[in-house]
Amino acid sequence: LYNWEVKCISLVFSFQQIQFVEDKQEFSRFPTKTGRRSLSRSISQSSTDSYSSAASYTDSSDDETSPRDKTQVNSKGGTDFCVKNIKQAEFGRREIEIAEQDMSALISLRKRAQSEKPLAGAKIVGCTHITAQTAVLIETLVALGAQCRWTACNIYSTQNEVAAALTETGVAVFAWKGESEDDFWWCIDRCVTTEGWQPNMILDDGGDLTHWMYKKYPNVFKKIRGIVEESVTGVHRLYQLSKAGKLCVPAMNVNDSVTKQKFDNLYCCRESILDGLKRTTDVMFGGKQVVVCGYGEVGKGCCAALKALGAIVYVTEIDPICALQACMDGFRVVKLNEVIRLVDIIITCTGNKNVVTRDQLDRMKNGSIVCNMGHSNTEIDVASLRTPELTWERVRSQVDHVIWPDGKRVILLAEGRLLNLSCSTVPTFVLSITATTQALALIELYNAPEGRYKQDVYLLPKKMDEYVASLHLATFDAHLTELSDEQAKYLGLNKNGPFKPNYYRYKPRS
Amino acid sequence: LYNWEVKCISLVFSFQQIQFVEDKQEFSRFPTKTGRRSLSRSISQSSTDSYSSAASYTDSSDDETSPRDKTQVNSKGGTDFCVKNIKQAEFGRREIEIAEQDMSALISLRKRAQSEKPLAGAKIVGCTHITAQTAVLIETLVALGAQCRWTACNIYSTQNEVAAALTETGVAVFAWKGESEDDFWWCIDRCVTTEGWQPNMILDDGGDLTHWMYKKYPNVFKKIRGIVEESVTGVHRLYQLSKAGKLCVPAMNVNDSVTKQKFDNLYCCRESILDGLKRTTDVMFGGKQVVVCGYGEVGKGCCAALKALGAIVYVTEIDPICALQACMDGFRVVKLNEVIRLVDIIITCTGNKNVVTRDQLDRMKNGSIVCNMGHSNTEIDVASLRTPELTWERVRSQVDHVIWPDGKRVILLAEGRLLNLSCSTVPTFVLSITATTQALALIELYNAPEGRYKQDVYLLPKKMDEYVASLHLATFDAHLTELSDEQAKYLGLNKNGPFKPNYYRYKPRS
Amino acid sequence: LYNWEVKCISLVFSFQQIQFVEDKQEFSRFPTKTGRRSLSRSISQSSTDSYSSAASYTDSSDDETSPRDKTQVNSKGGTDFCVKNIKQAEFGRREIEIAEQDMSALISLRKRAQSEKPLAGAKIVGCTHITAQTAVLIETLVALGAQCRWTACNIYSTQNEVAAALTETGVAVFAWKGESEDDFWWCIDRCVTTEGWQPNMILDDGGDLTHWMYKKYPNVFKKIRGIVEESVTGVHRLYQLSKAGKLCVPAMNVNDSVTKQKFDNLYCCRESILDGLKRTTDVMFGGKQVVVCGYGEVGKGCCAALKALGAIVYVTEIDPICALQACMDGFRVVKLNEVIRLVDIIITCTGNKNVVTRDQLDRMKNGSIVCNMGHSNTEIDVASLRTPELTWERVRSQVDHVIWPDGKRVILLAEGRLLNLSCSTVPTFVLSITATTQALALIELYNAPEGRYKQDVYLLPKKMDEYVASLHLATFDAHLTELSDEQAKYLGLNKNGPFKPNYYRYKPRS
Amino acid sequence: LYNWEVKCISLVFSFQQIQFVEDKQEFSRFPTKTGRRSLSRSISQSSTDSYSSAASYTDSSDDETSPRDKTQVNSKGGTDFCVKNIKQAEFGRREIEIAEQDMSALISLRKRAQSEKPLAGAKIVGCTHITAQTAVLIETLVALGAQCRWTACNIYSTQNEVAAALTETGVAVFAWKGESEDDFWWCIDRCVTTEGWQPNMILDDGGDLTHWMYKKYPNVFKKIRGIVEESVTGVHRLYQLSKAGKLCVPAMNVNDSVTKQKFDNLYCCRESILDGLKRTTDVMFGGKQVVVCGYGEVGKGCCAALKALGAIVYVTEIDPICALQACMDGFRVVKLNEVIRLVDIIITCTGNKNVVTRDQLDRMKNGSIVCNMGHSNTEIDVASLRTPELTWERVRSQVDHVIWPDGKRVILLAEGRLLNLSCSTVPTFVLSITATTQALALIELYNAPEGRYKQDVYLLPKKMDEYVASLHLATFDAHLTELSDEQAKYLGLNKNGPFKPNYYRYKPRS
Repeated sequence: LYNWEVKCISLVFSFQQIQFVEDKQEFSRFPTKTGRRSLSRSISQSSTDSYSSAASYTDSSDDETSPRDKTQVNSKGGTDFCVKNIKQAEFGRREIEIAEQDMSALISLRKRAQSEKPLAGAKIVGCTHITAQTAVLIETLVALGAQCRWTACNIYSTQNEVAAALTETGVAVFAWKGESEDDFWWCIDRCVTTEGWQPNMILDDGGDLTHWMYKKYPNVFKKIRGIVEESVTGVHRLYQLSKAGKLCVPAMNVNDSVTKQKFDNLYCCRESILDGLKRTTDVMFGGKQVVVCGYGEVGKGCCAALKALGAIVYVTEIDPICALQACMDGFRVVKLNEVIRLVDIIITCTGNKNVVTRDQLDRMKNGSIVCNMGHSNTEIDVASLRTPELTWERVRSQVDHVIWPDGKRVILLAEGRLLNLSCSTVPTFVLSITATTQALALIELYNAPEGRYKQDVYLLPKKMDEYVASLHLATFDAHLTELSDEQAKYLGLNKNGPFKPNYYRYKPRS
Repeated sequence: LYNWEVKCISLVFSFQQIQFVEDKQEFSRFPTKTGRRSLSRSISQSSTDSYSSAASYTDSSDDETSPRDKTQVNSKGGTDFCVKNIKQAEFGRREIEIAEQDMSALISLRKRAQSEKPLAGAKIVGCTHITAQTAVLIETLVALGAQCRWTACNIYSTQNEVAAALTETGVAVFAWKGESEDDFWWCIDRCVTTEGWQPNMILDDGGDLTHWMYKKYPNVFKKIRGIVEESVTGVHRLYQLSKAGKLCVPAMNVNDSVTKQKFDNLYCCRESILDGLKRTTDVMFGGKQVVVCGYGEVGKGCCAALKALGAIVYVTEIDPICALQACMDGFRVVKLNEVIRLVDIIITCTGNKNVVTRDQLDRMKNGSIVCNMGHSNTEIDVASLRTPELTWERVRSQVDHVIWPDGKRVILLAEGRLLNLSCSTVPTFVLSITATTQALALIELYNAPEGRYKQDVYLLPKKMDEYVASLHLATFDAHLTELSDEQAKYLGLNKNGPFKPNYYRYKPRS
Repeated sequence: LYNWEVKCISLVFSFQQIQFVEDKQEFSRFPTKTGRRSLSRSISQSSTDSYSSAASYTDSSDDETSPRDKTQVNSKGGTDFCVKNIKQAEFGRREIEIAEQDMSALISLRKRAQSEKPLAGAKIVGCTHITAQTAVLIETLVALGAQCRWTACNIYSTQNEVAAALTETGVAVFAWKGESEDDFWWCIDRCVTTEGWQPNMILDDGGDLTHWMYKKYPNVFKKIRGIVEESVTGVHRLYQLSKAGKLCVPAMNVNDSVTKQKFDNLYCCRESILDGLKRTTDVMFGGKQVVVCGYGEVGKGCCAALKALGAIVYVTEIDPICALQACMDGFRVVKLNEVIRLVDIIITCTGNKNVVTRDQLDRMKNGSIVCNMGHSNTEIDVASLRTPELTWERVRSQVDHVIWPDGKRVILLAEGRLLNLSCSTVPTFVLSITATTQALALIELYNAPEGRYKQDVYLLPKKMDEYVASLHLATFDAHLTELSDEQAKYLGLNKNGPFKPNYYRYKPRS
Repeated sequence: LYNWEVKCISLVFSFQQIQFVEDKQEFSRFPTKTGRRSLSRSISQSSTDSYSSAASYTDSSDDETSPRDKTQVNSKGGTDFCVKNIKQAEFGRREIEIAEQDMSALISLRKRAQSEKPLAGAKIVGCTHITAQTAVLIETLVALGAQCRWTACNIYSTQNEVAAALTETGVAVFAWKGESEDDFWWCIDRCVTTEGWQPNMILDDGGDLTHWMYKKYPNVFKKIRGIVEESVTGVHRLYQLSKAGKLCVPAMNVNDSVTKQKFDNLYCCRESILDGLKRTTDVMFGGKQVVVCGYGEVGKGCCAALKALGAIVYVTEIDPICALQACMDGFRVVKLNEVIRLVDIIITCTGNKNVVTRDQLDRMKNGSIVCNMGHSNTEIDVASLRTPELTWERVRSQVDHVIWPDGKRVILLAEGRLLNLSCSTVPTFVLSITATTQALALIELYNAPEGRYKQDVYLLPKKMDEYVASLHLATFDAHLTELSDEQAKYLGLNKNGPFKPNYYRYKPRS
């Protein structure tokens, strides 16, 4: 069956080219290995954000020796890796096994394609968060025939035990929690080049690996068959390269797949807004007055959850179409200033900056909470709160009381960074969708006939998006209806999809 | 203010061309004036569907004289019209006044543009349902400077009193409830041609007027500056013309505007599914087991409403992406056969045919209800129920009991036609959105500089869609937030919109 | 099985006495047969309210001959009845059959007890609305062994066809739609006395039958074994009699059963508020601002439904406990004056009077709607609107536009009477709960051993309430869990219930 | 104002006597100070349950010296206390200040009554959890004139910093986190007796203090003016004493106040079920199939929250009335065995035992979660899982994987104890309701004229319940409507309440 499916998918792949996005970000800001001082500039932002879930399992052991200074040998005698402590492998294995239970779609893909080995010969360098969920992806790639070398896309987000467990099974992992910037680039470098290793595929999250290879090893880079990029940041950097005519390798943007976007925004936020607020503040939702700034997918998710738990929710919007939707969904659409003295909680979901200003923070009620679910850490003008007359009091991890001279306290969460990443967890199921998409994208790029993909950035086609979705339906014991021949003809559709046109894709603020 | 707005809108208008939709429907099926026998084929389907709201006010007076045989004079001595009974004008005027109360957006547009008269010189032929809401549109066009001649797009849907009231104010209306097919084409013809009248704009709903002019008066047709088309059917026919290279006039498709589509599908269905079921069957929703076939916008609206009222809802889907959304929204995704013996109500929302087959109807429970909210009357295989062993019993208007030999009854609503059109009403607010969009589209096409529009079909641009939405926010006392200069720059947006890219538009089954 | 059940029920019956309710209503206002002039005072209020559902099927035939002046013979030659037209029996039979489909609990009770005939020897006089649903009850009583004579409790609510159908099967019905007051009492009288008939049970709805017998036939009344009373009004009158020491017959108050109350208030109102508003005004709920006065069960039902459909709902309350519940359920609790200029719809659910005053009506927005879901027709001060400067315009049945001198219109529904009775329908399922409760109460009172019931008013015991509920679970295919012996012992409960203490009952405003 | 209010309250106080609850629990099981071995029997269950919130702030310092062996002096030179570390007072003070922000009702009561000192002369011994919220209560009692000595009702639940802070202000606190049983009784004893101290009021939570005084100091006990008891356990013990004729002091049951019960059950569970599941398992709710056993208030709260977040919820019930409510609320009512192989999560809310048996746990899916929100830790038959063939793996705090021989894992939370207490937090607002009720009950009992209260257990009167509710409305900026004189007369109510009859109270499983 799988064979047919992959072929079927391959046949319909006709990745659309995407128009370049205008972006003033200078290409010259490309990170170079410089040293600690320039850390904040030289590593992409995503490299320093950390999923709290990743952190939660990881030990804070006292061993201060740098992994680079230790010699470790795995149980098979291998030494081509660098992790915190190979002895943690057993604990990490259990974490991976637990993750596998919620990633049945990926496991199912692994089982179907195992005998065929569609990645036989693939030599993949990966640079991602190293978590139990990523490990399930990596071990799937290996099961499908690939050789892998892996490093971390973030200096804090590696689960050391998982890295150890991967190492035990022969994956060359170079990553640990708490790397220095120098470590960060050293690890990447060790993944790219080693004796007898010529990578031909890249799986990246943030673009640091891609750009390192592009800059340092242009000849290796040119021989790459394809790049799969996961993050907004990385995708932007690829479009810049492409626009500048410097992208000599086909790349696939898996960030903008419909399935991933719906889950990353609407559904994830619906769950994580409650979780993030509760874990940090123990706030009771019933009867609380809340203003949600922005009614795109993220705002819609937040509003739905809060309304369902008995909060009274107001919405601010700049876009009349979204505003009209908010009205019809039962939310009063207001300007922030109308309700600023009234509300108990402000949540920003705009992607904009300075949506909550100092002036507005000055007028908030004592005990009110302000947090951000949007795209950057500038939605709340946190900088404006760092003035001498205000006292900051850290009351819990990720929770600051900002205290006005009159004693008024405003509760600021995660210092205005993303609440859902900082104070909540991302369900394994959502990570499974991402990982399955990445695996399929790698298979496609690796197997595509000469000429199908040019040196450009491609969107995931609907057919593949639908295939990822269909693999995840088993989790819900959901049964899809199949079109009869007569119906397919009537609708002008192929019985196996795609059911949506290729131009259908995730649109911001819809 | 308005002046600026219209100009601003005009400047950003850059209607996208749309690719032609493949459609096997033969152009040769274009209606010709033939006579009663061919009625069902020669008038487009929408011409015989009827909004129940339209019908509800209208008298069933005993006067059987055809309006064509009567001579009527309005209070100003005018005779250039043909309606049922000019004496009903006062009653119709009140209906119009009531409708105006819920169409404040259109009235507001009328007031803003009144002094400027952007339609001065426009000679508009219109062919739409003639209801109080349409009258508000027509009188707005007149207030903006246009001359209008108007006829009905449906032989049943004219509110006679409203037609009379329009006539009293000088609009040349040719329409009444219960026209014959011959009347239908006669009325259109009278609107198109009369002494001293050379129309330059068309407002059509279904395409019958457009095609009549195209066929019968090609020379008049060529001089038309623009066509505004409201219906799916009419838009399809325009695309066919265009594809065939025969469309010599720019046309605007207002059917696919985002605002209209969201309201016509998600929000309207959310309200009308409850109304339609209740008015016909008085069914109690609490605890009812319901299966909704299809989880596009229509299905989403139906599911949300029924779940909210305490029904237990199952979903069937062919598209894994929609299926996954249904799962996440809390609905079990099943095949119809799994629940057919269980459910109390089946609702089809697919746009597909034979979604409920005779075999399945055979297995439904005694007393169960089956109805259609989708796009055509073939979703339920009603034809298969017209066999000798089954008894049909009409128990109320639009309600049939189909009785099996063992006494089992299945309650079929509206004979499988659209429940929301047949057994419910469309809120005036939704009609206001449509009417406002039509008015703006007419203004734009009429005022566009030479060359802006070619001989093709154009989508409504986002800017205009957003403007319609913004005019309707006042109804909800909703207050839009404005971007600061700094924020607009940060987001790369114009402060006045559009806030969505032009390629963003309504997509079926999203 | 049934035998055991009834015995089991009988054993646990220990009806609580209820304390008398203080009521200033004068007993001397007891209706007497006086004539048309005193109609409005002499028939209890419920006698003139009418369910719209009852009315909807009934013909408005031109036959103006009073049924009292006609001689009719049913197909078995019987003449002991008086209905509009015996020839309508067949149509009525179908109505009854349709109703039976939604009253499976009552039918199931009928089947279980049929062989045992627990009402053998019972001679029941009934005075209720005569609808298809009542017919199912009456025919159940007959199947259980009773003889019945029946009349209408309301001069408008008889479905003539159903009355004819009952007559055909031998029930002595005296009722038609549109009785005069004189007819009303004549019909009652004919049911109470006829040759060879000595009634021993009363089923009443409103108390008119009971009081007629009490006043006119005290000797017959004394021999009655039990009264089952359905309505609030009738129950109040019984408590008054009892308090005055004049109630010489045991009576059972079925109005206050838990099951009935939950359905009559919370669940019914949740459905009927939407239906009532939609049928009368076609209003769109999404985004509407609504204030609901009172957050008891009725208010809770209204608020839940409106919120679910996208309305923004405010609540007014006098009781802080209900107010706190409203807050926690996500509604802003306000004083009416705070929102009076803002809201689109006012709904009263208080049981209080003058909750909406003329002063407040003066300040409502143009086009706003005002209606009543509470207990009386005085919640809105409708009388205050009948002043010369205001114009009333009847735009549809049950819909008045009240027009202020400046042109402002307020839409008043059902002239302030109960919206759910006037403009909506009561689901058959709810009527089935009532009818089943009435049947069980009759069985119990008729079979109770000497001395179990004194001359007082009794509440339905929990055991019986639970039995009615359990009979209705089949409709939902719901499966009850049974306690194990060990669990029953642990909880100190009988395995067959009651699961709630006897003192548990419906409390207003909980 | 307050003066009037208290007087007004006092006048209407007419506490109802409550009938004794049958309870097989032996009075002889009264705890005696015996020593470590009998700990589990001798301290009431509530003494060892612990709110996670209480624990979360508290240090786990290394100082292993028993507080009883240390001499500490507060800043005013006082030594009449025994806490972990007086130096933590400052941190504790901040915790109290933060709690005050969410307890504005209690603070408002404090301010209103401060000048009047209604507790002047009261000498209160308290035995409760010692948390920041309790501290706000204690300091309110002091502000109203009382002297207080306080100890912990639970050996684990004391926030040491808060105890230190209270001690600093002169309250004699004897409590620390991690007491031995011997410490527990020693602390109680030190609160009851000290030189020059003759307590006259008791505030108890669990009954340990009450019974200690009753047993050890009968002469002191007899002079107590009143007992206020908070817990189910303590209330049961009081009823036993009363039934045995041994309760020589009036006692008030604040556990069963309407306000407290609605919050403790429906609203709290609605919030904590999501929080408890998320914190322990990071489970995604969307699309999960969940069975909730029991549809009382707790079950209703759980079901509402889970449904709102996209779970598909089934209900099991033994009581047909609750089952019918579940149906009408949109939940399928099933037997557990029907869905046991299907569901992802089981939640027990019954108050019953062995609701989930080993046999059923054997049939659950791999990866499914089982937890308890009910009244005891026996709802899930956890004992049956402690057999040799099953492996238990503790994966996080409060989270065990129970692993079957075939590798299947079932995730058991909190070892079957209450999820909401073990894995979630109780909002301060809810604790404020409890604390305010306790304060009012103390004021009433202390000020009641001779003879108003006999030696029995009294329920909180509606008037007082309503007053507590009204004090908490300010949190929501909710505005209560006041009855006009005319309306009050019409309804037969006092304008100031009570609005509910005294017999109205919380009923389990309603």
